Amino acid sequence: MSDFKTLGQFREQLQKAPRADDSARSAAKVRNVQLTKPPGALGRLEELAIWYAGWRGQARPRLERPQVIVFAGNHGVTAQGVSAFPADVTEQMVLNFQAGGAAINQLAQVFGAQMDVYALALDRPTADFTAGPAMDEAEFLHAIATGWDAVDAQAGLLATGEMGIGNTTSAAAVACALFGGNAEDWVGRGTGVDDAGLVLKAKVVRDGLSRNSNALGDGLEILRCLGGRELAAMAGAMARARVERIPVILDGFICCAAAACLDRAVPGALDHAVAGHRSAEAAHGKLLEKLGKEPLLQLDMRLGEGSGAALAIGVLQGAIACHSGMATFAEAGVSEG
Amino acid sequence: MSDFKTLGQFREQLQKAPRADDSARSAAKVRNVQLTKPPGALGRLEELAIWYAGWRGQARPRLERPQVIVFAGNHGVTAQGVSAFPADVTEQMVLNFQAGGAAINQLAQVFGAQMDVYALALDRPTADFTAGPAMDEAEFLHAIATGWDAVDAQAGLLATGEMGIGNTTSAAAVACALFGGNAEDWVGRGTGVDDAGLVLKAKVVRDGLSRNSNALGDGLEILRCLGGRELAAMAGAMARARVERIPVILDGFICCAAAACLDRAVPGALDHAVAGHRSAEAAHGKLLEKLGKEPLLQLDMRLGEGSGAALAIGVLQGAIACHSGMATFAEAGVSEG
Repeated sequence: MSDFKTLGQFREQLQKAPRADDSARSAAKVRNVQLTKPPGALGRLEELAIWYAGWRGQARPRLERPQVIVFAGNHGVTAQGVSAFPADVTEQMVLNFQAGGAAINQLAQVFGAQMDVYALALDRPTADFTAGPAMDEAEFLHAIATGWDAVDAQAGLLATGEMGIGNTTSAAAVACALFGGNAEDWVGRGTGVDDAGLVLKAKVVRDGLSRNSNALGDGLEILRCLGGRELAAMAGAMARARVERIPVILDGFICCAAAACLDRAVPGALDHAVAGHRSAEAAHGKLLEKLGKEPLLQLDMRLGEGSGAALAIGVLQGAIACHSGMATFAEAGVSEG
Repeated sequence: MSDFKTLGQFREQLQKAPRADDSARSAAKVRNVQLTKPPGALGRLEELAIWYAGWRGQARPRLERPQVIVFAGNHGVTAQGVSAFPADVTEQMVLNFQAGGAAINQLAQVFGAQMDVYALALDRPTADFTAGPAMDEAEFLHAIATGWDAVDAQAGLLATGEMGIGNTTSAAAVACALFGGNAEDWVGRGTGVDDAGLVLKAKVVRDGLSRNSNALGDGLEILRCLGGRELAAMAGAMARARVERIPVILDGFICCAAAACLDRAVPGALDHAVAGHRSAEAAHGKLLEKLGKEPLLQLDMRLGEGSGAALAIGVLQGAIACHSGMATFAEAGVSEG
């Protein structure tokens, strides 16, 4: 269970999280150049395996017990008409997740991941952030703690996903508050709004930033005032993974907006995370650039739920299997170039 | 077993291969828009699943029995000093494949694929194509038939890979013969030649095209005169898959050079194939453009062996699992936007 009772204590936990294991990482690098392939021929798979080895503290790791967690929340800002879907869909989709009928269920199953679903107070949407902070401190802390506690400490990998009608608007406001620029630069079509919807989303983001201008100096405050419960829970889960040295695959725009708040609050808080994919949501690519993360996949997905991250589990499984399973030149009796 | 005794009969088999099943494809499209996600939100996964459904003739297919076949061949052109590795490595790597120690073994295992290895007359390298055709008709036909017969007719997916010291030079010559341009546009570093090696490879390609100039009008003749046994075998396997309506994932530069010969010989011969990845071998991107194929992955891999294609099996598994496993809006009681 979470061992923090205040946001300050949460931040301290994250600040004192252990780093990757340099000796395991170095040993993995040594192993990598001995494997039966030309140097560098597995491209990004090689760096992925070495990164994973460092975080797990094993020169020749196995990827066991990947966990996918989907957090769902409702957003008061939907009252502004920012989504193409009615807010009821958040709860309907939670039932779909629980029944195994959503995309993320299929993807988790294909890649052998445990999947957990947390619905966060769906009957109490966050406050409309154009009128004030989305959450008070107690609500925010509770959502973070829910995410923190949802992580299986024995998991070998974490992917966090989300469901929340209205949450691309929330994520755009978070990103705009963190990185500046115009609201138009950060809003996208979400589940499918039209041009007028895009204009409205930009106005709502501007209004939200204006109304919460006193909060914009700190990553966690930005997440509290402009985010949502599912974003806060994802941040809590990613923070817990950082403390437990569980590598994380980031999902799309909303997941990365939550992650970026952590990174702002505690520099290095995302060193254990890779970008699973670049989504078709317009500003995700820019957000990944700000985070300094190169996506593994670019398949025009824009579903959320953790779907892009879950698909990238397969890439990581492949990378680790090659690294840990291949023979060395010496073992196989193959001549080096 | 192959039911052709001449190249003409092989070509006829390919020409009369069945098309994809339009009604299954249409039914898959109808299903796709009913699934619990915003329209298009799974991006390329949606088109992949529909493409697969059409070729398998099932609106709600399963991906069963993927097969990876690695063909190995030796190249007389290595006498020109075009590779960073000695030619002995081809046979050493075949032993590594058979012992389960190569990258492709690990990737096939991760994605549940059957893996088969065929070593094609390694003790008799093809002729140096700067001195004449790489293969005579009998040798070429035998290699094609080996590939054809290697395909499991019950497989639900085929990925072909290769091993052959010197074969990026062979593939560059094939691509240059098919698509024109300068030899420099098609050669790359392969397993790791230096700048001088690149210059040499370009010269060897020019010499090969010049020496075999009478062969350049036909895709199969180009493959015979400038290719190698493993390229011919890959072409034979892909042709068999076309006839059996087994979808194919293309691998890197060498696999695509072989595939492009088929496409030139019989237009439409690659309609059952998707590009698994874009490799780091310099000209692969251009070759994919010529084939009109958008790669699923871009991870700077350049190993061959079918490794990029095998990694893409995971993407296809995810796409098909979503398509066939997700609930519809009606089934899940989710409101449409």
